[in-house]
Amino acid sequence: MSSDRLPSRSENFADWYNQLVLKAELADYAPVRGCMVVRPYGWALWENIQAELDRRFRETGHVNAAFPLLIPKSFMEKEKEHVEGFSPELAVVTIGGGQELEEPLVVRPTSETIIGHMYAKWIKSYRDLPVLINQWNSVVRWELRTKLFLRTTEFYWQEGHTAHATQDEAQAETIQMLDIYADFAENEAAVPVIRGLKTEREKFAGAANSYSIEAMMGDLRALQAGTSHDLGQNFARAFDIQYLDKENKLQFCWTTSWGLSTRFIGAIIMVHGDDQGLVLPPRIAPFQVVIVPIFRDEDQKAAVLEAAEAIKVRLRDFRVKVDLREGVTPGFKFNDWEMRGVPLRLEIGPKDIEAGTVVLARRDIPGREGKQSISQDSIEKQIRQTLDAIQDNMFEKALQFREQNTHPVGSYDDFKEVLETKGGFIRAHWAGSREDEERIKDETKATIRCLPLGSTEGKGRCFFTGDETEQVAIFAKAY
Amino acid sequence: MSSDRLPSRSENFADWYNQLVLKAELADYAPVRGCMVVRPYGWALWENIQAELDRRFRETGHVNAAFPLLIPKSFMEKEKEHVEGFSPELAVVTIGGGQELEEPLVVRPTSETIIGHMYAKWIKSYRDLPVLINQWNSVVRWELRTKLFLRTTEFYWQEGHTAHATQDEAQAETIQMLDIYADFAENEAAVPVIRGLKTEREKFAGAANSYSIEAMMGDLRALQAGTSHDLGQNFARAFDIQYLDKENKLQFCWTTSWGLSTRFIGAIIMVHGDDQGLVLPPRIAPFQVVIVPIFRDEDQKAAVLEAAEAIKVRLRDFRVKVDLREGVTPGFKFNDWEMRGVPLRLEIGPKDIEAGTVVLARRDIPGREGKQSISQDSIEKQIRQTLDAIQDNMFEKALQFREQNTHPVGSYDDFKEVLETKGGFIRAHWAGSREDEERIKDETKATIRCLPLGSTEGKGRCFFTGDETEQVAIFAKAY
Repeated sequence: MSSDRLPSRSENFADWYNQLVLKAELADYAPVRGCMVVRPYGWALWENIQAELDRRFRETGHVNAAFPLLIPKSFMEKEKEHVEGFSPELAVVTIGGGQELEEPLVVRPTSETIIGHMYAKWIKSYRDLPVLINQWNSVVRWELRTKLFLRTTEFYWQEGHTAHATQDEAQAETIQMLDIYADFAENEAAVPVIRGLKTEREKFAGAANSYSIEAMMGDLRALQAGTSHDLGQNFARAFDIQYLDKENKLQFCWTTSWGLSTRFIGAIIMVHGDDQGLVLPPRIAPFQVVIVPIFRDEDQKAAVLEAAEAIKVRLRDFRVKVDLREGVTPGFKFNDWEMRGVPLRLEIGPKDIEAGTVVLARRDIPGREGKQSISQDSIEKQIRQTLDAIQDNMFEKALQFREQNTHPVGSYDDFKEVLETKGGFIRAHWAGSREDEERIKDETKATIRCLPLGSTEGKGRCFFTGDETEQVAIFAKAY
Repeated sequence: MSSDRLPSRSENFADWYNQLVLKAELADYAPVRGCMVVRPYGWALWENIQAELDRRFRETGHVNAAFPLLIPKSFMEKEKEHVEGFSPELAVVTIGGGQELEEPLVVRPTSETIIGHMYAKWIKSYRDLPVLINQWNSVVRWELRTKLFLRTTEFYWQEGHTAHATQDEAQAETIQMLDIYADFAENEAAVPVIRGLKTEREKFAGAANSYSIEAMMGDLRALQAGTSHDLGQNFARAFDIQYLDKENKLQFCWTTSWGLSTRFIGAIIMVHGDDQGLVLPPRIAPFQVVIVPIFRDEDQKAAVLEAAEAIKVRLRDFRVKVDLREGVTPGFKFNDWEMRGVPLRLEIGPKDIEAGTVVLARRDIPGREGKQSISQDSIEKQIRQTLDAIQDNMFEKALQFREQNTHPVGSYDDFKEVLETKGGFIRAHWAGSREDEERIKDETKATIRCLPLGSTEGKGRCFFTGDETEQVAIFAKAY
């Protein structure tokens, strides 16, 4: 067993994760506590995620802009819950150009405050509404326990900020963006998610209502993979974002914010990865196909490389890499690209050239079962169909895994036993208070991930209070 | 004269510039000293600039990544010239998570140091070279006198950082990236530039050699619009970036860095803008065509809007906006889109529908001369040709302007007179010292913008020292 091998997931999931991130060259530890360097392979994945989200944002009328990194400290203090939530996490600039600053500046942990300030300046009348702006950037939150992608002091994300004339419109926007996140997660990243409302305890500091998408990781824990906040008029009042309505009366706006971060890369790793490494969904994989040329001597080499390049040209509609590295064996290359999760490997050697074939190996189906020899004649179509099949299979597998590991419970004793013996998601009727939720967390470490939207359970008894309720909650231990 | 009108360029160029940036909604002042908010229209322009540069970077083998925003202060001190150059401009984080930090962190002013640290970790052997990484981000430099886009405390840019096995390769990379900037500037932004070497006095803090592209603004001043630095082994030695060569001997790498920033938007404004506002080059304009529907009553409205939308659909290969705003006149819309510099306006009213025509108005040729009625039959082709003609015309106009305002001089007296009476660029043989350059700056405010590459003047006498030399310099007052 090579020292380059990963620990197995069942052996030590946390270790498997950390080593995988490093070995696949997705990210590395930075020389600043809690920060990461996103390496080119990881960044290419993020760029594909960005492209898919950005397209959806534009199709729904949003535009991008850029607001400053540095925020006057006093801004953070204008919204009561916001300051309580974020104060402990701030990085503060106290010196600029060699001088102590009169007012310290915080490195943005999120931009509701400075954007609120600008919206107050820009918005005059109902004609200026809605304002639908997104920005791609990084934010800094001083985290105590960090983990690559999942929780880092600096992380990359998009933050959308919108202002509306009515509460209904703002609520509709909040749900629209939640749906966009869910659509992206399921259809591009093959990550099944549950859309739901966060409880008071878990909501964003300053929001009226927070919604999230929640996914189940390979170790049965939950991960919040994107959030959308209905901010009510909280920030509009704190920053004086007002407009003149059609009757010429001054009204406060209704605002929203929503974000999805590089944390999502952690979800992709932990939902799809296996003991051999990453498994990337074809629609957002940096390389969809890797071609590994196989030859024994220089004579064979020339012909094989030519054939490999010719196939690459034919596959111009796909993201294809030809692995031309010298000094390493095809077997090394196979392992390396498996580690990096490339969905489809294409092997070509002298015999394939003679027969007019290539060997396809699917990353999602390990070993012989995922391998087949195909004719070069219809290679474009075969690749397209195989990539689609991989994408579908990855989603189905993840969905089945979640369903198999989601359990109902009838009582708190039941709850504790299921959590201890099985783990995963507990989905049950819930009528408890914030204090009840707190107690469950203290006793079991499980929290309410969300109150799922559109649950079809109907009425039932809360497993904790025994009260009858229509409300359902998802409990889990979470990242 | 409406108060919404700009001051003329000849009246007050600085005021014209500032008001134009605000009125065209490219950017706004942020509530933090010296920072700006890049508004959606300005950001869309930047995104188009990014796309054109990014494409060129990828075609030459570069990949993107992301390095942290926060850099340990001690890193800045490892390269002697670098620390001298950047120390006065640093923003320093001294508090994190409510605690005073043991080592202060600087908000990156540029990333040679932290990237150097990571390269030292990643690069082991000649097989790992070259490393060709770029990142898109923002950086912070504490500037005393700021101006939207041209000089802001935080600005947006890309910074490329490469490591090579040989000096030749690093030098070739430096020139390649300079050429890419020049190609982008001239062919996408229609901004003619001079490629050249910076003098010792003006080079990047820590570079062996710095190169820049220099452009002439509408007020005859120069603007450095992009830089490419050959860093020699300075950073490799400071950060211990070494590799094992083929003979298994440890060698220091040769590194480069190169950047182009949102400052370039300032160049586009000041090269092409006129008294009516912005004039944007078609290849990077957020909207290439704006359609203004013209009607007198509700009956006409329906037919005109339908026709406008139908044309938009036919022009799907272009970036087209239909201006549907209510409550403002077509005349208001004309002025508004002129202010925003949209290259081509398309007017359509009931008479045009009847005749199967539309009116085209070119932004680069004001008034009647730039207007023509064309048949709808070949509209795609006409739009394509007209946009190309605008792009070419803008470049030619800017080039002529620069040539008309570039002067030779035979003596220092001559130099001073030309500078005072004519301004613009002075292009002359130069054999002076760093002290001579300093004296000229003190006495005239003009600096050496660059020593142009590939100058064809041959030998001549330095206007300042009288010595014979082949070296030519461009002097100008600069932004």
